Amino acid sequence: MPHSNTIHESLTAVFQVRRFGSDVSAGRNGKHPELAVLLWERALDPQKGTWSLPGGRLRDDEDLDTSARRQLAEKVDVRELAHLEQLSVFSAPDRVPAPRRIASAYLGLVPLTTEPELPADTTWHPVSNLPDMSFDHRTVVDHARTRLAAKLSYTNIAFALAPDTFTMSTLREIYCAALGYDVDTTNLQRVLSRRKVITPTGATAPSGRAGGRPAALYRFTDSGLRVTDEFAALRPPT
Amino acid sequence: MPHSNTIHESLTAVFQVRRFGSDVSAGRNGKHPELAVLLWERALDPQKGTWSLPGGRLRDDEDLDTSARRQLAEKVDVRELAHLEQLSVFSAPDRVPAPRRIASAYLGLVPLTTEPELPADTTWHPVSNLPDMSFDHRTVVDHARTRLAAKLSYTNIAFALAPDTFTMSTLREIYCAALGYDVDTTNLQRVLSRRKVITPTGATAPSGRAGGRPAALYRFTDSGLRVTDEFAALRPPT
Repeated sequence: MPHSNTIHESLTAVFQVRRFGSDVSAGRNGKHPELAVLLWERALDPQKGTWSLPGGRLRDDEDLDTSARRQLAEKVDVRELAHLEQLSVFSAPDRVPAPRRIASAYLGLVPLTTEPELPADTTWHPVSNLPDMSFDHRTVVDHARTRLAAKLSYTNIAFALAPDTFTMSTLREIYCAALGYDVDTTNLQRVLSRRKVITPTGATAPSGRAGGRPAALYRFTDSGLRVTDEFAALRPPT
Repeated sequence: MPHSNTIHESLTAVFQVRRFGSDVSAGRNGKHPELAVLLWERALDPQKGTWSLPGGRLRDDEDLDTSARRQLAEKVDVRELAHLEQLSVFSAPDRVPAPRRIASAYLGLVPLTTEPELPADTTWHPVSNLPDMSFDHRTVVDHARTRLAAKLSYTNIAFALAPDTFTMSTLREIYCAALGYDVDTTNLQRVLSRRKVITPTGATAPSGRAGGRPAALYRFTDSGLRVTDEFAALRPPT
């Protein structure tokens, strides 16, 4: 079996919870929070007019993490990226037309309140309503979404989707949007507090439309990823 | 920046808990169970005499998972491999002498009781006492070990290190060896039973040296990887 020239690339699914559309039954601003992914539209063939994940070819002088950050910086300010992690490698021989490209896929997360400036060909799309996507990029988005949902259940990864401080009502919106189904605010607060994932700041948010008691503000205890739900009996001795 | 020819390879850290040496204070057979990794000794330069992980070059007609299994089959019968998963990609430009090689690293697990036939250049080494290793292969072993320890805390991954049925005493030996520190049998049984990770078979093991009550035999409830410790409040609606 001969070995022909192969290109290595990075591809990043950058997610943010964003408010789309207009829905009077929905929350603040009458808009519905949804998980969104950053895509750019191909102006040239192959697959002109389809939508792609940001990414590109690995250079000789950089490793993949550096390359993924460099490629992303062309689409979105990397200082706005609160988390970046490797997913798996997409290496099916026919995933794109020749020459072969092996893609290292990444998951990137941007907090709710940032509003990155985007190039003209780039925009956020709700993952529930994706446009016609290039090559196997939709599979990468599905994979990234599955990883995010799994990590929401045993890590503090939501720190990278949340603002610095937030009410439980906002945090519930973020979890619901990222998971794609409803979760209960009281349960969420109880479990995240017991695991010390979130900490009350002592401050409160300005009263909402309905008046009433001002809501307590929380923050994430850590700003780096950690497993929050580890098996206590297996913790290393301290 | 020019793009020169780059090779893509797989590298697998295959782990098994094995009994090494002779220690009268240790368990069955007077031997001490330890986490071991499968290595082969390089007969040629570069780095002749150092020890390498099994792996090799990706072919044009296969994806990386297929390639990792094919390369492994040359060292160990793949039917004996109870679990294989991608770790991260090792892509530092200078990780090996030119030409550049990008390595997709894998974690592979073999159950306690299997005894694969090995080629003459290949042997098991305790991870606590590794020989002089090739290139960045020791970093891959460290990474694989960290992933295994993390997954022991929130998944049922130990199914791939355990025999089909086992006593709690044997399962504790497996956890201790894989984690590198002591865990308590009673805690282990309570937590794994509560999470339905293990199930009693109803049978008992033959009496041990000390006579006394025969020990209950258990099995893993599932033979595929699952997150056992997910956040109940975040489970999808059923």
